[in-house]
Amino acid sequence: MATTHQPRPIAFPHRHLLGIDQLSPVEISGLLDLADGFVDINRQVEKKLSTLRGRTQINLFFEASTRTQSSFELAGKRLGADVMNMSVGSSSVKKGETLLDTAVTLHAMHPDLIVVRHHAAGAVELLARKVGCSVVNAGDGAHEHPTQALLDALTIRRHKGALQGLIVAICGDVLHSRVARSNILLLNAMGARVRVVAPSTLLPAAIDRIGVEVHRDIRSGIRDADVVMMLRLQRERMSGAFVPSVREYFHYFGLDAAKLTLARPDALVMHPGPMNRGVEIDSDVADGPQSVIREQVEMGVAVRMAVLEALASNLPNA
Amino acid sequence: MATTHQPRPIAFPHRHLLGIDQLSPVEISGLLDLADGFVDINRQVEKKLSTLRGRTQINLFFEASTRTQSSFELAGKRLGADVMNMSVGSSSVKKGETLLDTAVTLHAMHPDLIVVRHHAAGAVELLARKVGCSVVNAGDGAHEHPTQALLDALTIRRHKGALQGLIVAICGDVLHSRVARSNILLLNAMGARVRVVAPSTLLPAAIDRIGVEVHRDIRSGIRDADVVMMLRLQRERMSGAFVPSVREYFHYFGLDAAKLTLARPDALVMHPGPMNRGVEIDSDVADGPQSVIREQVEMGVAVRMAVLEALASNLPNA
Amino acid sequence: MATTHQPRPIAFPHRHLLGIDQLSPVEISGLLDLADGFVDINRQVEKKLSTLRGRTQINLFFEASTRTQSSFELAGKRLGADVMNMSVGSSSVKKGETLLDTAVTLHAMHPDLIVVRHHAAGAVELLARKVGCSVVNAGDGAHEHPTQALLDALTIRRHKGALQGLIVAICGDVLHSRVARSNILLLNAMGARVRVVAPSTLLPAAIDRIGVEVHRDIRSGIRDADVVMMLRLQRERMSGAFVPSVREYFHYFGLDAAKLTLARPDALVMHPGPMNRGVEIDSDVADGPQSVIREQVEMGVAVRMAVLEALASNLPNA
Repeated sequence: MATTHQPRPIAFPHRHLLGIDQLSPVEISGLLDLADGFVDINRQVEKKLSTLRGRTQINLFFEASTRTQSSFELAGKRLGADVMNMSVGSSSVKKGETLLDTAVTLHAMHPDLIVVRHHAAGAVELLARKVGCSVVNAGDGAHEHPTQALLDALTIRRHKGALQGLIVAICGDVLHSRVARSNILLLNAMGARVRVVAPSTLLPAAIDRIGVEVHRDIRSGIRDADVVMMLRLQRERMSGAFVPSVREYFHYFGLDAAKLTLARPDALVMHPGPMNRGVEIDSDVADGPQSVIREQVEMGVAVRMAVLEALASNLPNA
Repeated sequence: MATTHQPRPIAFPHRHLLGIDQLSPVEISGLLDLADGFVDINRQVEKKLSTLRGRTQINLFFEASTRTQSSFELAGKRLGADVMNMSVGSSSVKKGETLLDTAVTLHAMHPDLIVVRHHAAGAVELLARKVGCSVVNAGDGAHEHPTQALLDALTIRRHKGALQGLIVAICGDVLHSRVARSNILLLNAMGARVRVVAPSTLLPAAIDRIGVEVHRDIRSGIRDADVVMMLRLQRERMSGAFVPSVREYFHYFGLDAAKLTLARPDALVMHPGPMNRGVEIDSDVADGPQSVIREQVEMGVAVRMAVLEALASNLPNA
Repeated sequence: MATTHQPRPIAFPHRHLLGIDQLSPVEISGLLDLADGFVDINRQVEKKLSTLRGRTQINLFFEASTRTQSSFELAGKRLGADVMNMSVGSSSVKKGETLLDTAVTLHAMHPDLIVVRHHAAGAVELLARKVGCSVVNAGDGAHEHPTQALLDALTIRRHKGALQGLIVAICGDVLHSRVARSNILLLNAMGARVRVVAPSTLLPAAIDRIGVEVHRDIRSGIRDADVVMMLRLQRERMSGAFVPSVREYFHYFGLDAAKLTLARPDALVMHPGPMNRGVEIDSDVADGPQSVIREQVEMGVAVRMAVLEALASNLPNA
């Protein structure tokens, strides 16, 4: 029942959650502990708390995202907040308003929490500097997507007990992936061993300097891995000669049952969604016994509840 | 006042409402009785119950529909649920996610009720098989639209006392109409005499085999009818040579005051909306004393509250 | 805390708020007094009242407007109403439904309050005649935008104590501006001295007959003004030869620091937003110490709460 939830204060001395790079291992663990408690609440009939009652949460999405926006919306509503969705693109932006004027305008309406997705790296941090409330980065360009990394970590931790020492292979379109970036930062911070598996054309230039093993062959990349994390091939962000053929990509970098046998027998298969079945992942594997893809979505709501509650507890007079 | 509402358990042993074809006459009557009680609540100042408090309702619309989505949204909110709208088409679908992956993703967020509209017949049932919560069909292709048939039945029953023995003429674009299909199933089940009135080009091939009288002349079709139910001419679903001229269609199949005199003097005029005035129905009749078109919309909210409450009361631990 | 708010009955014998032209000075002052009390509530952690609990508010926007719709949505939610957004354009309108059928349909769902924005002057009043609930005009064509004028008045009154006797210069695209029209009506009613400053091509024909001083030179127009209210250049509503060049427009009619020195040293700078920076207003001035542009947005939520509460208290059985 809702009444059994006692908000536990955690060490989280931040006004915003802009990226994993701002978090210490203790803070990451604290958020995951808090999220763990919300998993059970979300499985109850009455999934409703009053921690954020009277608070205003604005979901400001400059890019459409069914999955992430829904997850944040449900998280806020289940904590009792008034949640308002703003899909920008059709109105103010067309009228030529700048990002910062949008931020200042929203802030004047006294929200407590603004969840922002934007197509440009750094846009969320820019916006956070202009407002007095808490800002959560729900994905900015190819920069960061911190709640995705946290939900992935929670999923792994619930299966493996800890992240320390695990071999995690992140495979695919690393170049365009804020998911990969946030995951690398989090996994490195928590002592996991991260491998990045991709063709050279889908690797960022500085990949060698961020503390990961780089594999250009998926077979060596996933060998003995505890976790195989597939990325969506973001063909909509590519152009011209650099768009790989789907058939060839699947052959070399798609995960199928044969390749998966190279990983540990109890390896988890993960994907941030939405999946391109038959492109980066085969349906047998996506729906197979090692897949925790559905569970990632479930953990997403719990992690976002934790982030919203942790930030709100830092607000003045809270 | 809200406090006077005591949820009455009704016999409704279903997890989903996918179509009228799954319902017995007793179950239909039970839903209509339950809905009847909500009509008065919706007319009060404080239209708010707590039957679904802490429950999550997702409105998943793959086709836009102002009217039906609003009706379900208000129904859910008035029962105290957290309601989340998802208009798909702009985001996940564009990214190539399959219907089933969308279903599985949503389900992982632990909704209790998913209300689905989809352009393909059968899509809602497919989705229902993949989720653990209750699914309501809000219209799937030309297949079924069960809550529309229930609201039509409630409207008729409140005026005529019972459906048994009434002559109901369903007129117009039967071929493209899930409304017609669900109404025929419900009215047949409840013992009404159903006539279908349409030009041959707007009749399904198997129309003779589903227990209705077929009339190709509206004059014979509505003679002595107790209810004249006009359908929207769905020209957006037609193509090429099969699109009738509006002028000709109105002349032969549009309902006007002159034709209406052929029906019983107390015949009800109905339309599921949105109306094409001057195409399938004349404004004099649409706004005339026999029209119950506004009342159909009112009954819509009550019927959807009944369906949501009945399904929720079957959920585990409810 | 929310519990300290006692709804104070004010003299407001209206079912709708369609325009400033229907309000007496006493009624305007009453709304501003009521709104003043909501300003503090919106600055609290728990911004949640129960005045409109169980009431249904529909935001019916035929034109997109991030700012105004958000402001009304938050206002309604903070008063405890069930708020439903309907962005029309994609669905019913495409299906050919008339404005009045949309109104009648919505009304049958028993909303208490409908907030309407429409591109045609007079459309909101037409709609109000067809429904039994309260209607708020959120902007209709170039006609009125009464809550904008009220929030501007509240902003001015909080800085200057009263409106009586103040010189207010309204500058720019008066021709296309419902904001200008509602402000002129309100300021005249409250005894301010209104100047309108614009090139002849952006002035309505009958501007000389509505009790304002007309200035075609911004320098004379803002001299000794207490308030300088800039309007958005609505180039999207202009066509062909009448679209001014941005550069030329800024030179002659844009507000910059040099021109602002002509106004009183304590003059307020206002803009209804969204701003075209460098077109009608320079960033130095928009972000400068005399600007109250952010405060206008803040007052917007408070004023809309006042309007919604005042109208709701007139509803039957309230």
